[in-house]
Amino acid sequence: MSKKIPVGILAATGSVGQRFIEHLVDHPWFEIAALTGSERTAGRPYAEGVNWLLQGDPPQKIADMIVQPTEPNLDVPIVFSALPSEQAREVEPKFAEAGYIVLTNASPYRMDPYVPLLIPEVNPDHTGIIPYQQEAYGWKGYIVANANCSTTSIVLPLKVLKEAYGLKSAVVVTLQAVSGAGYPGVPSLDIMDNIIPYIGGEDGKLETEPRKLCGTFKDGKIEMADFLVSAQANRVPVIDGHLGSVSVKLGREVPVAEVVELFKAWQPSELVRKLPSMPQQVLIYRPEKDRPQPRLDRDAGNGLAWTVGGFRSCPVNDLRFLAIAHNTLRGAASGSVLNAELLLKQGYLG
Amino acid sequence: MSKKIPVGILAATGSVGQRFIEHLVDHPWFEIAALTGSERTAGRPYAEGVNWLLQGDPPQKIADMIVQPTEPNLDVPIVFSALPSEQAREVEPKFAEAGYIVLTNASPYRMDPYVPLLIPEVNPDHTGIIPYQQEAYGWKGYIVANANCSTTSIVLPLKVLKEAYGLKSAVVVTLQAVSGAGYPGVPSLDIMDNIIPYIGGEDGKLETEPRKLCGTFKDGKIEMADFLVSAQANRVPVIDGHLGSVSVKLGREVPVAEVVELFKAWQPSELVRKLPSMPQQVLIYRPEKDRPQPRLDRDAGNGLAWTVGGFRSCPVNDLRFLAIAHNTLRGAASGSVLNAELLLKQGYLG
Amino acid sequence: MSKKIPVGILAATGSVGQRFIEHLVDHPWFEIAALTGSERTAGRPYAEGVNWLLQGDPPQKIADMIVQPTEPNLDVPIVFSALPSEQAREVEPKFAEAGYIVLTNASPYRMDPYVPLLIPEVNPDHTGIIPYQQEAYGWKGYIVANANCSTTSIVLPLKVLKEAYGLKSAVVVTLQAVSGAGYPGVPSLDIMDNIIPYIGGEDGKLETEPRKLCGTFKDGKIEMADFLVSAQANRVPVIDGHLGSVSVKLGREVPVAEVVELFKAWQPSELVRKLPSMPQQVLIYRPEKDRPQPRLDRDAGNGLAWTVGGFRSCPVNDLRFLAIAHNTLRGAASGSVLNAELLLKQGYLG
Amino acid sequence: MSKKIPVGILAATGSVGQRFIEHLVDHPWFEIAALTGSERTAGRPYAEGVNWLLQGDPPQKIADMIVQPTEPNLDVPIVFSALPSEQAREVEPKFAEAGYIVLTNASPYRMDPYVPLLIPEVNPDHTGIIPYQQEAYGWKGYIVANANCSTTSIVLPLKVLKEAYGLKSAVVVTLQAVSGAGYPGVPSLDIMDNIIPYIGGEDGKLETEPRKLCGTFKDGKIEMADFLVSAQANRVPVIDGHLGSVSVKLGREVPVAEVVELFKAWQPSELVRKLPSMPQQVLIYRPEKDRPQPRLDRDAGNGLAWTVGGFRSCPVNDLRFLAIAHNTLRGAASGSVLNAELLLKQGYLG
Repeated sequence: MSKKIPVGILAATGSVGQRFIEHLVDHPWFEIAALTGSERTAGRPYAEGVNWLLQGDPPQKIADMIVQPTEPNLDVPIVFSALPSEQAREVEPKFAEAGYIVLTNASPYRMDPYVPLLIPEVNPDHTGIIPYQQEAYGWKGYIVANANCSTTSIVLPLKVLKEAYGLKSAVVVTLQAVSGAGYPGVPSLDIMDNIIPYIGGEDGKLETEPRKLCGTFKDGKIEMADFLVSAQANRVPVIDGHLGSVSVKLGREVPVAEVVELFKAWQPSELVRKLPSMPQQVLIYRPEKDRPQPRLDRDAGNGLAWTVGGFRSCPVNDLRFLAIAHNTLRGAASGSVLNAELLLKQGYLG
Repeated sequence: MSKKIPVGILAATGSVGQRFIEHLVDHPWFEIAALTGSERTAGRPYAEGVNWLLQGDPPQKIADMIVQPTEPNLDVPIVFSALPSEQAREVEPKFAEAGYIVLTNASPYRMDPYVPLLIPEVNPDHTGIIPYQQEAYGWKGYIVANANCSTTSIVLPLKVLKEAYGLKSAVVVTLQAVSGAGYPGVPSLDIMDNIIPYIGGEDGKLETEPRKLCGTFKDGKIEMADFLVSAQANRVPVIDGHLGSVSVKLGREVPVAEVVELFKAWQPSELVRKLPSMPQQVLIYRPEKDRPQPRLDRDAGNGLAWTVGGFRSCPVNDLRFLAIAHNTLRGAASGSVLNAELLLKQGYLG
Repeated sequence: MSKKIPVGILAATGSVGQRFIEHLVDHPWFEIAALTGSERTAGRPYAEGVNWLLQGDPPQKIADMIVQPTEPNLDVPIVFSALPSEQAREVEPKFAEAGYIVLTNASPYRMDPYVPLLIPEVNPDHTGIIPYQQEAYGWKGYIVANANCSTTSIVLPLKVLKEAYGLKSAVVVTLQAVSGAGYPGVPSLDIMDNIIPYIGGEDGKLETEPRKLCGTFKDGKIEMADFLVSAQANRVPVIDGHLGSVSVKLGREVPVAEVVELFKAWQPSELVRKLPSMPQQVLIYRPEKDRPQPRLDRDAGNGLAWTVGGFRSCPVNDLRFLAIAHNTLRGAASGSVLNAELLLKQGYLG
Repeated sequence: MSKKIPVGILAATGSVGQRFIEHLVDHPWFEIAALTGSERTAGRPYAEGVNWLLQGDPPQKIADMIVQPTEPNLDVPIVFSALPSEQAREVEPKFAEAGYIVLTNASPYRMDPYVPLLIPEVNPDHTGIIPYQQEAYGWKGYIVANANCSTTSIVLPLKVLKEAYGLKSAVVVTLQAVSGAGYPGVPSLDIMDNIIPYIGGEDGKLETEPRKLCGTFKDGKIEMADFLVSAQANRVPVIDGHLGSVSVKLGREVPVAEVVELFKAWQPSELVRKLPSMPQQVLIYRPEKDRPQPRLDRDAGNGLAWTVGGFRSCPVNDLRFLAIAHNTLRGAASGSVLNAELLLKQGYLG
């Protein structure tokens, strides 16, 4: 126990913060040693200030921890950030400057040229930018960012296709769960018996983040991939799990059956496969015509797996498919923890 | 009252049948004079056999009508058919042969080269095929078909764009309401907190019907339009109202602002505008980023209007937009009644 | 048109305020002449400041009206108040003092001994307390209050039973719609696939308000009825319509069939029956075992009718039944308009 | 492995059958050795015939098992029955006669005077009736029944109260999940944005089963407890988890605080506590005003725990409270497995 690395969670009482606690409370390498919160919750035991949204209660060893203000004086080398956008923009650089390793779910620095936008199965080598970040900004620590949860849902299949056949463009429509909007988030009066066909800022993220994630790290730079993405995001009355409906133009024609075999056989690199949070099967192909479905597939691989299906040729482009990932697990907290595991294996945690 | 045209409703107890009753019960030109049903309901008063799904009760003047078997011996010249597919395939030609005018919501004859697939705002001239149908099949009556409800949602905007700029292709993702599956239809255990990303046969209909609807009637033939459609249909936890998320390639480049003006100004032909069921505004443009929404827009124009919005340029194709229509009203019963009104004005009801 | 009485709506942009507009925009006696809102909306056209939650758009003649601050300097004699509780407590007496007739949906003065808690079908004579209110508080105007929306759902059947047989006690469990919590109200993450078995303050209102409503006005006082109520309120994933499941102990034993006849025959007083908003049938008995249901019955009588059913004897008490009323129409805005209509007929509008 | 007792599951492809598989697939004492199904599924591998409703896929060791017809020639001593009512009525006695031990979820024999209606935490001694059953009916095997899922939700708290203070009557309103109706079960068109305030036969079960469960086994007979129950069952748009809202009259007055202490301290008998499926805490008291909630509490203790809360005095009776149990786990499959574990410990499995 004493050998575990102590970590902090910034904005630990929010919905993503709760997912961090859920994932980290029994982690083999990391140990929760600091929780931060807003003025309302700071100074009180965690269980008193939190509106626990998950099943049951906050874990016992967390319940009595005193929530601290979100300032860079925590006694841990690593922080997981579930901060809201504006606060993240201001606070995360201060943590990095003060020497902290910041694994963030927030959006402000995702497209920063020196910040790796990291998904271990997609671009593990992008962490090579870290020393350049430290040099460019004069930081002792550094920032590593998660992708947006909707980007996450579709980017692994896009990467797999790009590697195999080349990728020219993707037309994406997402059906996104309400938990993606945080808490209190989407009012029930807005979403019951309804669809909201717009999520502020989401289309832009879906159209740029995949190009960085599928880009190339070379000579101290991450070069963006050159495919185009068109995205239309919808909020749907589903609790967890983002579904992407995708039509792609590939670099060459390829039979659907070959694509299916590609996805059935795909595995991440060996280093990534051995990370402790990695599920046995991280990319799951479902042959049924009506899968993947959010409620049935979001929790696959403890919420860390992608589930894909619906591969068909496309009358307009080359190929169509469906992809689902759990937005607050794979697309947020658990994805971030996996990033930290990768950083440790790559030697970036010192 | 005595001058109204008596009409029959085939399969009057089902969910679309009930919508027919709702629309026709106070119609200025037509009067419900016959209702048919299955063996279970035939011979009993309508109110006894029906599982009324709409608000309140069946209208009083309908409640006591005796349901008849679905056989071509009804004392009416016109029948509206809400029959299930297999039964429609068998029965509707018998009605047409026996001299009935059949306005059908069923799919079997939609793509028949002699059957007009009719939406008054889209292709009012396609009724010109009717005499050819009667000659080809030796029928005294004839069949006119409704489009599929999901096709309906998107085809008017496609037609408007095609007329103005030419249309090369459309990538369509639909989010479809559960009422589209009839009753009992979609089990709650399948759709609560979930999406079903597949509806049997729906993609094919979405990929062919718009090409017939936007086709050209010439020399006794309906020639299919030559644009391509790629469709992915999803069932979503919404009661009524199909939403289409569309990306199109046009015949030429055009500024989004011009497209918006086109849609704000569009009106159907004068003949169509004067049909009694026609709402004041049948194609509604909404400027808000997050509209149209099924619950807020499905009932516009008594459920007969299309609502469109979300016009934006597309990084991959030319233009993106959203369209909603009420699936059991515009896309089924009320659309069929409007077809009958058009036929009367065009002189096809004799 | 010029003879209509001008009225104001306090907090006109909220969810109940919108219902007021919907009901009053074409009212035969009243005309909307003033709208008030918060600092955020005051000074701007109504359509700009409102987040319109109902179908379509705000009515055209309202859209351009400038929202005013909520202060007692409006050029109307009557105001309908949709103010939140705390603001109502402070502001409504100022309006009454300044001579306004205040018809309020807010709770602070409902149980005030001088304020009539009014439902025309239940206690039209309680308006007799108005002169005593004016004298006691030295007001030129006065306050008349609506009952809580959940109280409303069940109080008419309780009153009908009390009149006929006497009423000793009622055990009530309510299943209440999310619109009862206003907007943004209940977060979707809290209520999707879930029940919240507690609504702050609601049980207390359900246990006291019916006793005032069914009480007796005599000698300048409203004497509370002496039956007991036990209430457990639940929030359920329903948009509109509160359902009450009730078990009552009556003053004497009575066969269920007799109770059913009582409810089938019941009518309000003639004065009330002739109010312009009164539906043809304001108390609807449904014989089906599985009715009333919120979605099927909430809109009966334009949302002003009660629907009851499920009358059965009770193994523990005497009688069980179900009752539904539309919470934001009957239980809020429309109920308040009906109160104003009654006041006019009774001569209290001067 | 070879020492595990082989068991069969009757109607293994249905929704409760799937829950049996989920629970039994890694059971320490039992091993699934036979699955039966309808004509449609018999003779085929389980994974082919089943419409798997739970997350992921059927367990691998089950997927290839050939489904057998439901006839008493299975090579196992024990069968768990998820049969529908009518089939259970006919088939289960044949199994018992042929020597099988039948643990049934079906209702037909629940109120049979010789069949124990068993919940280990409530009435473990009722198994004493088994030899009398065998003698009365001349069976080599026997039938042990589960309670109805809604009965289950409320009966443990009723039993705890009865033991401590005596119980005179209970007025119960249930809010029941759609999974309780099996598959396809409740149509989405009936339950979305709605409540169905009636479930056929459910009220009767709720009014009689608790009296048998809380009854006394003496002299070869189970004597019914003499309290009265009034029940009103509602179907609500919740996937899993039945909520009971209860008001009780006790044998004597008792402060609420004392009742809370009773429930916080309560434990089942030592024998029951040691059953392998027993969760660490089987009766959970939640102090929050708005708990228990179905989505947050149904899975407590692997779906085997009851969660109670909301204890308050009652203005009409003595005490009010809320109780939740998972209807297809505690109230069906897992409850039945627990019964089998108890029977083994008591020596009834031979």
